[in-house]
Amino acid sequence: MSLKKGDTIFFENCPSITGFATVGGKKESEGPLAEEFDCICVDTRMGEECWEKAESAYQRSAVEKALNKAGITLGDIDYLFAGDLQNQCTASAYTVRDLDVQFAGLYGACSTMAESLSLASSFVGSGICNRAMALTSSHFCAAERTFRTPLEYGGQRTPTAQWTVTAAGAVVVSAQGGAPYVKSVTLGHIRDFGIIDINNMGAAMAPAAAETILRYFADSGKKPIDFDHIYTGDLGLVGSTLLQEILKQEGVTLPNYSDCGMLIYDRLRQDVGAGGSGCGCSAAVLCAHILPEVQSGVMKNVLFVATGALMSPVTFMQGESIPGIAHLVHISSQK
Amino acid sequence: MSLKKGDTIFFENCPSITGFATVGGKKESEGPLAEEFDCICVDTRMGEECWEKAESAYQRSAVEKALNKAGITLGDIDYLFAGDLQNQCTASAYTVRDLDVQFAGLYGACSTMAESLSLASSFVGSGICNRAMALTSSHFCAAERTFRTPLEYGGQRTPTAQWTVTAAGAVVVSAQGGAPYVKSVTLGHIRDFGIIDINNMGAAMAPAAAETILRYFADSGKKPIDFDHIYTGDLGLVGSTLLQEILKQEGVTLPNYSDCGMLIYDRLRQDVGAGGSGCGCSAAVLCAHILPEVQSGVMKNVLFVATGALMSPVTFMQGESIPGIAHLVHISSQK
Repeated sequence: MSLKKGDTIFFENCPSITGFATVGGKKESEGPLAEEFDCICVDTRMGEECWEKAESAYQRSAVEKALNKAGITLGDIDYLFAGDLQNQCTASAYTVRDLDVQFAGLYGACSTMAESLSLASSFVGSGICNRAMALTSSHFCAAERTFRTPLEYGGQRTPTAQWTVTAAGAVVVSAQGGAPYVKSVTLGHIRDFGIIDINNMGAAMAPAAAETILRYFADSGKKPIDFDHIYTGDLGLVGSTLLQEILKQEGVTLPNYSDCGMLIYDRLRQDVGAGGSGCGCSAAVLCAHILPEVQSGVMKNVLFVATGALMSPVTFMQGESIPGIAHLVHISSQK
Repeated sequence: MSLKKGDTIFFENCPSITGFATVGGKKESEGPLAEEFDCICVDTRMGEECWEKAESAYQRSAVEKALNKAGITLGDIDYLFAGDLQNQCTASAYTVRDLDVQFAGLYGACSTMAESLSLASSFVGSGICNRAMALTSSHFCAAERTFRTPLEYGGQRTPTAQWTVTAAGAVVVSAQGGAPYVKSVTLGHIRDFGIIDINNMGAAMAPAAAETILRYFADSGKKPIDFDHIYTGDLGLVGSTLLQEILKQEGVTLPNYSDCGMLIYDRLRQDVGAGGSGCGCSAAVLCAHILPEVQSGVMKNVLFVATGALMSPVTFMQGESIPGIAHLVHISSQK
């Protein structure tokens, strides 16, 4: 049912993405993709008493909408793969507490949309189950509290810093169904080039993105020109520039390339530094922008390469550098 | 290659556990299982400058020993599934940074040994890959700092509190090989019975353990008497008593039942409150005690049910109750 060549799993019976949805917040409602979200909730508290609970509310909303679009109920989902940026991944745990479903908790930092989609596709594509869901989210205010300083502190942001997206994305993967299809998945290796500036995550993640992309091309025999578009997760301005420089040194140029962190906001007008970031960044762009274009056939083949920085505030204070990882999913309009 | 019935994946070609190892710390060296560890490092700093880095050193040591026992090198491992208790799962990330392997990061709290073993077995058992590794750890000092109070504070412990085990466990799952075999895996659903006392994790996790065990019996048609032994992960004295009460209400008694948290320490002599806990608790008992007995044929069939409490200190302070989860693995001496 699947063939592993090198680091890539190629599906013989490609799983179908039968439902997908994303719900964003106020800042996202002011960005260039605002119209493409399934729902915008400008109250970033979602009526909850704290941002952490609000993040779960964004997730719940995305799950409901994805199930609706797939025309199924939660009982039709065999496995839910989910994770987020909160300590102990509690946004996902408290979402899934209210859902009666088999749950595998993940931590892939901002790469979680691709990690969860890879595992869900692997379970469906290898015949283990019929349907699985991939879910992730991030929330600007919860992430600032977790990783940086309390919002009330009003810390100055550096130009390389990125803005954590407030959004959740949910994807239903099914054994039967139409386009988009998941053709293959490539889980990444951790790479650490010694970046210690936690306000420059893009630079920390770029080497891992380059590595995964190069491995995929080696495994598949495909070239950048075989794809309508290649998307990375949240490298931002600095990281996406670095990625292209690294790839150029390897003789690879990406003619149709964008970073989700550069698409979700109007970087200068919205004053978001080097761009968007967070699990919700690539999740939102995948569900709002990429999947609809593949579903409609406007794009035939895309690579979705979500990137994650795997440090914590504790390891930062202990002087550690920032390890990065990137997972890749080939999504196609044809089986 | 596998058949999903209800919540359980039954493998037609049962994956083999070809290597497994656990490395423990000082407190573990004073417990009843001390002689069964592959290695004990009484310097719980492992020569590192902080506990967090020491936890990665325990993991690296367990990985090396498991690979050696399997007679393979890291290059033979297709996927590494790992997670831990540190914020952003950094013990695993910084271990894997030094390992050139495809990595899927997990967060299942103290259920991670069963979650990682379930996913590794699913990938191998469904034919996606030939070999995968499951890895997890916990460290008493790192966990106290993450979840409770700094050690220097010297907080009084309540009788229901448990002692986080300092240990790492690594398991190699292969498509070919001898006993032990993974016959089936059952990922859990989250259950929350409203426990808000973070010094009583056992009570918070017991309902999820009961649920997963009952689902497994329903899916498999088996009975407790079909197993030489049934192990839960870290329910401790309070949780394991509660589990048996809940099961009794459902008409199920477990004649041969132990909790790993009750086995790893001499509870009263070592003054560990209600018993051991942490990802490393069930990982250590699995690798030091359970797998050798199944490998040698002393035990023919066991259920390994690791349990996790999915709260964080932030959700606790926000008044949230503690969601629990339990994942089950059926391990057998026969294919």
